[in-house]
Amino acid sequence: MIGAGQLARMTQQAAIALGVELRVLAGSPDESAARVIADVRLGDHRSLADLRDLAKGCDAVTFDHEHVPTEHVRALIEDGFSVHPGADALVHAQDKAVMRERLTAIGAPCPPWRRVGTAADVEAFAAEHGWPVVLKAVRGGYDGRGVWVCRSAGDAAEVLASGVPLMAEGFVTFERELAVLVARSPHGQGVSYPVVETVQRDGICVEVLAPAPGLDPELAAAAQEIALNIAKELGVTGLLAVEMFAVPSGLIVNELAMRPHNSGHWTIEGSRTSQYEQHLRAVLDLPLGSPAPTAPVVVMANLLGGDDPDVFARYEHVMAHDPGIKVHFYGKEVRPGRKIGHVTALGTDLDEVRARARHAAVYLTEGRYT
Amino acid sequence: MIGAGQLARMTQQAAIALGVELRVLAGSPDESAARVIADVRLGDHRSLADLRDLAKGCDAVTFDHEHVPTEHVRALIEDGFSVHPGADALVHAQDKAVMRERLTAIGAPCPPWRRVGTAADVEAFAAEHGWPVVLKAVRGGYDGRGVWVCRSAGDAAEVLASGVPLMAEGFVTFERELAVLVARSPHGQGVSYPVVETVQRDGICVEVLAPAPGLDPELAAAAQEIALNIAKELGVTGLLAVEMFAVPSGLIVNELAMRPHNSGHWTIEGSRTSQYEQHLRAVLDLPLGSPAPTAPVVVMANLLGGDDPDVFARYEHVMAHDPGIKVHFYGKEVRPGRKIGHVTALGTDLDEVRARARHAAVYLTEGRYT
Repeated sequence: MIGAGQLARMTQQAAIALGVELRVLAGSPDESAARVIADVRLGDHRSLADLRDLAKGCDAVTFDHEHVPTEHVRALIEDGFSVHPGADALVHAQDKAVMRERLTAIGAPCPPWRRVGTAADVEAFAAEHGWPVVLKAVRGGYDGRGVWVCRSAGDAAEVLASGVPLMAEGFVTFERELAVLVARSPHGQGVSYPVVETVQRDGICVEVLAPAPGLDPELAAAAQEIALNIAKELGVTGLLAVEMFAVPSGLIVNELAMRPHNSGHWTIEGSRTSQYEQHLRAVLDLPLGSPAPTAPVVVMANLLGGDDPDVFARYEHVMAHDPGIKVHFYGKEVRPGRKIGHVTALGTDLDEVRARARHAAVYLTEGRYT
Repeated sequence: MIGAGQLARMTQQAAIALGVELRVLAGSPDESAARVIADVRLGDHRSLADLRDLAKGCDAVTFDHEHVPTEHVRALIEDGFSVHPGADALVHAQDKAVMRERLTAIGAPCPPWRRVGTAADVEAFAAEHGWPVVLKAVRGGYDGRGVWVCRSAGDAAEVLASGVPLMAEGFVTFERELAVLVARSPHGQGVSYPVVETVQRDGICVEVLAPAPGLDPELAAAAQEIALNIAKELGVTGLLAVEMFAVPSGLIVNELAMRPHNSGHWTIEGSRTSQYEQHLRAVLDLPLGSPAPTAPVVVMANLLGGDDPDVFARYEHVMAHDPGIKVHFYGKEVRPGRKIGHVTALGTDLDEVRARARHAAVYLTEGRYT
């Protein structure tokens, strides 16, 4: 696995069970996954030589993040390595304009969009679709970075001044955000997890409700169909997370990720097959596992670093308060706003389960009792 | 953790979630847990110097097996290390005669027993309690090793000739074998998992049924009370597995183990808190987690090595046949009869769940379709 963040770290838990020996490429031995894996290669994911050293002897190569240059992915495949997802699929999770072109071509629901380079481009787009206009960096954004909601030509001018390649999207007034996680294996088997609702704050996911509460079953099926179809049309191998907006007219696809995803952390305890096990099974071309839930309601809350670095000191209260809460820490240094872990609560009543997850998350990160 | 077998390996999965950095003492880098842990110290569990090197800087020291000399455990505690279970508790899982003395003293149900050194001792015991007599090595036995069912003085003479310190126990005709797994933390909190039935073949556990099918609730409560009481009276910190015989008159305690136990592997998916997480919480003196089951019926089947070393080749069928089966491999070289992994099936109907677990276990180890 290229990258050694928390996604690789949690993949290790699944790899241990399957007897899969996981090797990671880490930038430093302190990275989240490097702390819990025996076979750590230090190197740079932008160096083809480092990627080749990593891949040598592996049955499959996959990713913890989308930042590996597409041409390097292509070079590894040309070398004969089994890389999942492949470059032709992965580029859609790396380049938002390529993604929009392709989704438009296959008929997946998109907002109005256009590549833009100048103030005149943005103003022409706004004249057609109105303000605000959402400008997005074509490459490199995540967790709300690389996305700017511009309410005027003045806002847009500031973003354009950065010189980053951009695209414009129409501003979507949504009812809520949904996510669908699917897996697809090289032999073409596909599996969809239940549709979840994701709750964001400042562009960062803070909470996932599984399944999405009160979602119309037909809309849920439509969302799953859209995601499975994207996986198939784009030739995704491994996991694909499709972030969507629920709008009065139905659904709009927002973003794609081709790896284990924050919206799927709940599956570790909440599904018979965790997203991490599913990803390993998919990239190794093994039959996929059951996505059946283990409880009627599952809520995952992210732990975002606060001011106090000593989160462990708060384990005692949280564990005594709720013997059923599941705590996950990523072994990362605490920095304000950084994703340092998550908690998962499971049960039958949404309000109760959500309150449990929130209580644990707020107490662990802020030491505050809610 | 002293030792790097499959119990340490599966403890790593729980340690990753809790952000606990697990260090193991391994005899070789190929051992089951050494393959999946970043912080591996190579050494010998019989060397006090190696144990001290391992313990340095750790918040707690615990065990993957019972083979560390009791005096070394005592020495580590005298050094000031936080060792769980402590020597005074652990000795009861190391020395069967000490265990029987103590269990007898606290009123836990035992078979007739006596320390024996000579043929005359055994014959006197048999005169009182009848043949067969079960001779047990006082120290060092596991998985049926160190236990001899003697049907005559001749059988006993052979065992006595080995010179191993022995004890005699009356032969128990039991209805079935049960096991109770409890956890106890240094501050005295105790938790019991549901009572399970263990199915043995040639002295090796092959299957665990959770909960024990059709067990009278009063007998189940009595079994849990016996186990929690032993944990308290012996001052156990960490996990305690109490193996019991169900007999017409009630229950008889057979063996004790003070570590994660084969009879608790089902808790990884089958309980809200796995035995591995529970053990870490106990030895770190954190509040214990909920032992609530995640399904009405859980069946665990051990994978015992067969003649074919390539078990992975059989993943495809097993995973396609049953998308809900959970496979665990220990990263151990396949040798006939060796515990190389286990599978867990979960559901609502015992016969169906048991058939699923058996199918997967037989196919994975023998390539045979049942």
